[in-house]
Order: sequence, then structure tokens, then C-alpha cells
Amino acid sequence: MTDFRAEVQEHFRGLRDRIVARLEELEGGTRFRRTTWERPGGGGGEMSELRGELFEKGGCNFSAVAGERYPFVPSEGAKVLAPEDEALGVRLPRAEDLAGKPFFATGVSLVLHPRNPYVPVVHLNVRYLQVGELEWFGGGTDLTPCRPYDEDTAHFHQVLRDACDSHDPRAYPRLSQWAREYFYIQHRKSERGVGGIFFDYLSGRAHWPFVRAIGDAFLPAYAPLVEKRRGQVFSDEDRAQQLKWRGRYVEFNLVHDRGTLFGLKTGGNIEAIFMSLPPLVAW
Amino acid sequence: MTDFRAEVQEHFRGLRDRIVARLEELEGGTRFRRTTWERPGGGGGEMSELRGELFEKGGCNFSAVAGERYPFVPSEGAKVLAPEDEALGVRLPRAEDLAGKPFFATGVSLVLHPRNPYVPVVHLNVRYLQVGELEWFGGGTDLTPCRPYDEDTAHFHQVLRDACDSHDPRAYPRLSQWAREYFYIQHRKSERGVGGIFFDYLSGRAHWPFVRAIGDAFLPAYAPLVEKRRGQVFSDEDRAQQLKWRGRYVEFNLVHDRGTLFGLKTGGNIEAIFMSLPPLVAW
Repeated sequence: MTDFRAEVQEHFRGLRDRIVARLEELEGGTRFRRTTWERPGGGGGEMSELRGELFEKGGCNFSAVAGERYPFVPSEGAKVLAPEDEALGVRLPRAEDLAGKPFFATGVSLVLHPRNPYVPVVHLNVRYLQVGELEWFGGGTDLTPCRPYDEDTAHFHQVLRDACDSHDPRAYPRLSQWAREYFYIQHRKSERGVGGIFFDYLSGRAHWPFVRAIGDAFLPAYAPLVEKRRGQVFSDEDRAQQLKWRGRYVEFNLVHDRGTLFGLKTGGNIEAIFMSLPPLVAW
Repeated sequence: MTDFRAEVQEHFRGLRDRIVARLEELEGGTRFRRTTWERPGGGGGEMSELRGELFEKGGCNFSAVAGERYPFVPSEGAKVLAPEDEALGVRLPRAEDLAGKPFFATGVSLVLHPRNPYVPVVHLNVRYLQVGELEWFGGGTDLTPCRPYDEDTAHFHQVLRDACDSHDPRAYPRLSQWAREYFYIQHRKSERGVGGIFFDYLSGRAHWPFVRAIGDAFLPAYAPLVEKRRGQVFSDEDRAQQLKWRGRYVEFNLVHDRGTLFGLKTGGNIEAIFMSLPPLVAW
């Protein structure tokens, strides 16, 4: 393993540890249950799942896998969603540079479904890929409140904007627009939440400090919203509406999300993939 | 409108009425709530939804729509799933005979999610399409018990086999195999239930008596299972397992079902499409 692979992998593992520790602090009693899995082809992951009072369901997964042949699946969608952006460093790889090449991938993936409808759902992903001669970063974070508050949305975006700006002032406008396009539920003609940032194919090691900054921005962007809203009283009617509203999250993940579909279609770990789905949903 | 269109459409409307009446009889108190919708391009439908005690959620939709341009979506999957079968009358239309042609479609679609985990979930669809110069029937019915009983499965299949055999002894073996292939949850490597029959592109009016027989077989195949199991006592643990097990139904419908995805991607009526999803699901 190269030093850089090891550095990224261990940083992501540490990021997972820091996030899990802070979430357990917020939760109070219940702890994350950690399970490890091995990938037949090489590497594996560590799933951390919480079924708590504050977080009705929460998942935070770390993984680092390697293999001889990258399971490249051509996707028309990817082209539309990832226009080249040389200035930012977004470079679409050519299919022939990926298909069947040796690969390494490591990342952290998180989704939290709070019980209280006033505490927003949140998602975070940061990942690093090496495929053949290429390497790139991808990921993003977005906020999905059942009951949105402008001030909460503004806080979440401001923390992300600051993290982006300190590296490249062009990043936040571009990546928040990308999130608006990516986290869009076509059949409902609406975004799944109030946005955040999304990026993929951010090519080259020069972007590592930026990606670290995004990972580091997660807790300052999200934790204050939990602390602010967790005490708000909700009614049975609020809860019933929340269960119906959660259906949209399932619809997005199962119908549109490339990561979920890629995982399902390439024989990924079902438990890890479905950790993102809400604990209880009504239609 | 041709006489045949009118005949099929009115028969389907009557089938819906007969099924709804019998289900209301089984339910006892609560009635189906009927709402009509119009398709901007022409025609429309009547949704019947039940939120009852026996049937926690049930939907039975009738529709008859027409349009100037058939929204043909080429699908690799369809080829694999519908091999030509000249003897049975299964003939795959060529894309150029469908795309952009005037069309008419009418059908009945039903899904029932009982509250008691011992009463099986069931699905029925019968439909008739005219596109350009072509016309065909499609549909099927399948049983999805949370707690399967061999004798219930045998009864359901026997009624379908009898309905098939009276028209063509080759039909049941072929169409029940087709159901095993179609109602398969790839990422779980398992069928969604205990099968039934499935068919598509059954071409020509000669198949109308057969399709009528399938529609007529639904109540005798299903209603006795409801009467037999509705009294079985279930525990909180049974209920919790049922809610988790229902996730598979959502996964099948949102990830694999061509009808659902076709509807979502062509701007279908979301309420009618999601009537098939279970009322409450846990992951």
C-alpha cells in the first residue's frame, strides 16, 4: 500500500471515530453497534449502527476495499451530472481507463434519521478512488429536514461555504448547484431536502486538503441543529406526517441514487447499503 | 372507439366492481374510497383505496387512457424477460412499430396489504394495449405471504392452473415460470413471494377469453386464503417482523418493477403508482 492510500484511509477511519463519538455524546445512552465485514475480493468495512432515542436510526460506515478489476458500469446519467470543470479539477475518466483495471476505494458514509421531526435528516459521504492510473475524490453532504427552518438551512450552508472558500472560492457555488441537481426527486419534481454540496471525479491528490475540510465541516454544520431542535415538542400528527415524508427518502435512494443502485447491482453488502433507509416509513 | 375496445374496457370496469364488492364484504366495515383522475393527453382512471382493519391498505385501480404518441421506452430487460413464444402467442413488438404511435391502454391493477402477517399480500394486473397496428394483453397475479403455508400456495396455484388449462395446457407451466423470473429480487437473490403467473405481449384478440379467465380466477384463488388466516392470532414480534419483511416489497417495486419505473419516468399518477407500496415499513 502506498503512503498516500494509507494516509487517506487512516484519516477517514479517524473521521468516522470522531463523528461516532460526538453523535454518541448527543445521543446520551445508546451506543453505536460496530460490525466488520470482509469483501471476498479484498478489503472490507466497518459498519456502525445506532438505534437510539434521539437518532431513531443512524449509520456511519467506513470501508477500504481493493480488487483486481474495477466493476465499471457505464451510466448515461453520470455524464449529465458531472460536466467537466477543468478549473475546479473535475475530470471525467474515459470508460477504457476504468473498465477492468485494478482499484482501491476508501470512504466514510453516514445517514442519520432522528426520531423528532424537527431534527433534520442528514447525509455525508467522502471517498477516495484509485483506478488504474487515475485517482479522484467524491462525496458530499446534504440536509433533509421534515420541517425546514431558514436559519438552520443558512447555518448548514454557511459552514460548508466557509470550508469550501478556504480552498477555492469557485467551489461552493459550483458544488452546491451540483447538489441541487443530484438530490432531485424527478417523479416528485422537487429536491429531497434543502441541499448541501455534491462532487465527484475531483481528480488528483491536490484536492486532499479540501476533502479533509469537508469531512471536518460535518459536525460543526450539523450538531448545532440537533442541539437546537431536539427539545421541540412534536405531536402524533407531526409523527404521522414524518413517516409519510420519509417515503421520499426511500424513493430517492431506491429509484435515483447511483451509489445505492451501483451497490445493489454489483452485489454490495445489503446491510450496509440499506443502513441509509429510514427506520419506519408510511405510504 | 371500436366495439372491442369498449367491450374490454367495460369488462375490466366490471371486474374492478366485483373485486371491490367482495373485498368490502371481507373487510366488513370500512369501504373503498374512490377517486377519479384525468390524463391530460386523454382518458383517465378510477382509483379505489381502502384503509381498513383486515386490509391495512388496499388499492384497486381501473384505467383507460389514450394518446397520440406511445411513450415507448426501450428496455434491455424486456427482451430477456419476454422471449418469443409463437405457440403461446407471445410476440415481441419491434421498437419502430411502437415508438410515437397512437395508443390505447386499459386495465385493472390491485395490491392488498393485510394487517395480519398470516394473511398473504397479493397483486393482480390485467391490461390490454393497442399501439399503432398492434394489440396485446399483459398482466399476472402473485402471492406474497409473510408466513407462507404450502397448502395456501398450492391452492392459489391450482386455481390459476385450472384457469390456464381450460384455454391452453402449455400456458400455466410457461407463465408460472415467467412469474418466477419476473418477481425476483436480484439483490436479495430470492423471489418476492411464492409466485403465480406473469405474461406480456400476448398478441391478438384471440387471447381475450383467456385474460378474462385470469381476472375471474383472482377471487377464488385469493379470498379463501383470507378467510382461512384472518383469525390467526399474531404477536408484537410477528408484527415487527412483518414490517421489516415488507421492505422487500418496496425494494422490488422501486428497484426492479418495470411498471412502476415506467410510470415514474413517464410522469404517471404518483398516487396511483404508490398505492402498491405497503402502509408501514421498517428498515
